[in-house]
Amino acid sequence: MSMLSPPGVYQKRQEKIYEWMFQEGISLIMIEDFEGRRNQAVRWLSGQPGDALLFLSMNKCSLLVPWDINKAVRCADVDTYIPYEEVDRNPIKALRSAAKELGVPNGSRVEIPATTSYPHFLRYVEELSDFDIICHEGGVWAELEKSRAIKDEAEIKIYRKVSAMTDEIINLVEKNVRSGKLKTEADVALFIEHKSRSMGCEGTGFPTIAAGPERSFGIHAFPSYTGERFGGSGLSILDFGLKYAGYTSDVTLTFAAEPLSKDQEKMISLVEKAYKLALAEVKNGEPARNAGIAVDAFLGRHKKTMPHALGHGIGLEAHEAPSLRSRAGNDWILELGMIITIEPGIYDPVHGGCRLENDVLITENGAEVLTNSRIVRL
Amino acid sequence: MSMLSPPGVYQKRQEKIYEWMFQEGISLIMIEDFEGRRNQAVRWLSGQPGDALLFLSMNKCSLLVPWDINKAVRCADVDTYIPYEEVDRNPIKALRSAAKELGVPNGSRVEIPATTSYPHFLRYVEELSDFDIICHEGGVWAELEKSRAIKDEAEIKIYRKVSAMTDEIINLVEKNVRSGKLKTEADVALFIEHKSRSMGCEGTGFPTIAAGPERSFGIHAFPSYTGERFGGSGLSILDFGLKYAGYTSDVTLTFAAEPLSKDQEKMISLVEKAYKLALAEVKNGEPARNAGIAVDAFLGRHKKTMPHALGHGIGLEAHEAPSLRSRAGNDWILELGMIITIEPGIYDPVHGGCRLENDVLITENGAEVLTNSRIVRL
Repeated sequence: MSMLSPPGVYQKRQEKIYEWMFQEGISLIMIEDFEGRRNQAVRWLSGQPGDALLFLSMNKCSLLVPWDINKAVRCADVDTYIPYEEVDRNPIKALRSAAKELGVPNGSRVEIPATTSYPHFLRYVEELSDFDIICHEGGVWAELEKSRAIKDEAEIKIYRKVSAMTDEIINLVEKNVRSGKLKTEADVALFIEHKSRSMGCEGTGFPTIAAGPERSFGIHAFPSYTGERFGGSGLSILDFGLKYAGYTSDVTLTFAAEPLSKDQEKMISLVEKAYKLALAEVKNGEPARNAGIAVDAFLGRHKKTMPHALGHGIGLEAHEAPSLRSRAGNDWILELGMIITIEPGIYDPVHGGCRLENDVLITENGAEVLTNSRIVRL
Repeated sequence: MSMLSPPGVYQKRQEKIYEWMFQEGISLIMIEDFEGRRNQAVRWLSGQPGDALLFLSMNKCSLLVPWDINKAVRCADVDTYIPYEEVDRNPIKALRSAAKELGVPNGSRVEIPATTSYPHFLRYVEELSDFDIICHEGGVWAELEKSRAIKDEAEIKIYRKVSAMTDEIINLVEKNVRSGKLKTEADVALFIEHKSRSMGCEGTGFPTIAAGPERSFGIHAFPSYTGERFGGSGLSILDFGLKYAGYTSDVTLTFAAEPLSKDQEKMISLVEKAYKLALAEVKNGEPARNAGIAVDAFLGRHKKTMPHALGHGIGLEAHEAPSLRSRAGNDWILELGMIITIEPGIYDPVHGGCRLENDVLITENGAEVLTNSRIVRL
């Protein structure tokens, strides 16, 4: 069991799903976390950091089918295991074996991942005709998404820690870019990689984007960092996250170096105003898209458009629920305990890009800003 | 268009798919490369490095729906674009718009990704009832997989270059571990990150695994590298790849430092023998599983098992076709121009792990070893 989570945290989460299964009459659930079909719900429910199938049965048993049994024994808090080799690395065989091991009777309702491809779904139904195979987007997947969106005490504690480490790195990067110690995009990105490990993080939560003035116009610069100058005259963007105990922070700084054009100054000013506006809109009980709508309207009045969502939940994945997207169909309501990013940005092929992103926790007093990212003037 | 590929390389690949479409009577194909549904076939066919939908129509037109239009204009070699925003970031709307733009008549056969989830598939069929929506695992997906498995001239040229760079890094890492300049797992991994960029690579092809003697027993150590000692007494594993022009190398070294136990010496000897055996088995026209079967049998005679496949194709993805898995059902035949890894390994919770991996090109003279990874004695 992970040393970073208090005892019982995984059982408590499993318990919640068992209750849901009982209410819905679902006998067995399979969650898949393999290459091409990643789902961090496996780690959230068991502590197992990937490359495994997790089964939960209505009689409150958890069974893991890991690729690497040694890793599972160290990491996972489950009742029992079947090595993946033993079922020929075949999810359908794994499901049959797990159902047998967990005493799931024929005819039972079994939920498989909503991401199961149509051709695979046909195979499940054909080969497991003695079960009632269910594959839809609501059900346990909606339940898991919602549960994971609202962080529990253990998770909020982890976020306070990873946020403090993120701030420490923000300060060091600012200092070292100012002093000229970090000159290129790669200097900055690799400094973060190095520091993250020496601080005890698993690493970075996603590929760091360090884009100097020539490349910052890209929403997500490609490649994510190069040997080019970072922090030269104009706008440079740094978007990174630290991954600690599985959970990632996600912040973006813009470095604005003189001389700046009038257009660049205007971009900075608009992004800072949009950021403040968004923070004020983010409240417990409010539709998550409202902040997005407010920012879109504000930028629209200044003839600018933001080509991405205002923010998103963070957690074991860099992008989780809720979305702060302004579009119709985004029905998320902000709730206490959600941790989201606020990240307004404007991009221009000539003037470059400007984005400001921090992580915030929804509390009874509105948005508590956890990280201290900012626009840095050089 | 990418400066690293000769003009016409993408059109040539598209042409091959158009021909296939004509033969099969498919009017439109959609390929998706977004978060959670990655498919490097988009880059292979157009040069666009991700975050886009690619449509190919029977009348030989290519249409890209990119998330970041600025990136697409710089990178992609296609006939026309529709910004993703314009179709509300909705793949079904994108398909409808693309069909209209490309003049695909109602009732036509349209192939959507074989990875499309069952719930999404139902939506495609419902919302696009005026087309014949096809979603299966053969069809264009098998064609693309096979085409990508056999590298063309441009790709082999890239592999000669990325292999040479990989060898240069292998030599530098060996030198610096010997001298004590690189002491920890993070030292080694970050040295590679840094060098890869200064050599002009996009970065590394997958997270570098640097596992010292205490952690090398894991097939893929987790976290992939830490601040722990690398190269101390016993067996340390280094598994990395460089990504150049989109293509990744994939090599593994084992560092064996005195004093070594008799068991560890035996593991090294078996892995080296298995590696040589595999190289001799890898031949144009042979079933790809034969080498895997030979290695499994050899290790079995010494009461060892290898918990992973003997190797796999590499390319724009770290894992491509063909697989060298020994299991029944692996029907791949080795062909001229395939580039694969050969990577026998043995793992033991007490003695650690030993793996040796190089990249080889299938030629008329058998396996041409492209990289120079090895067991390093310290």
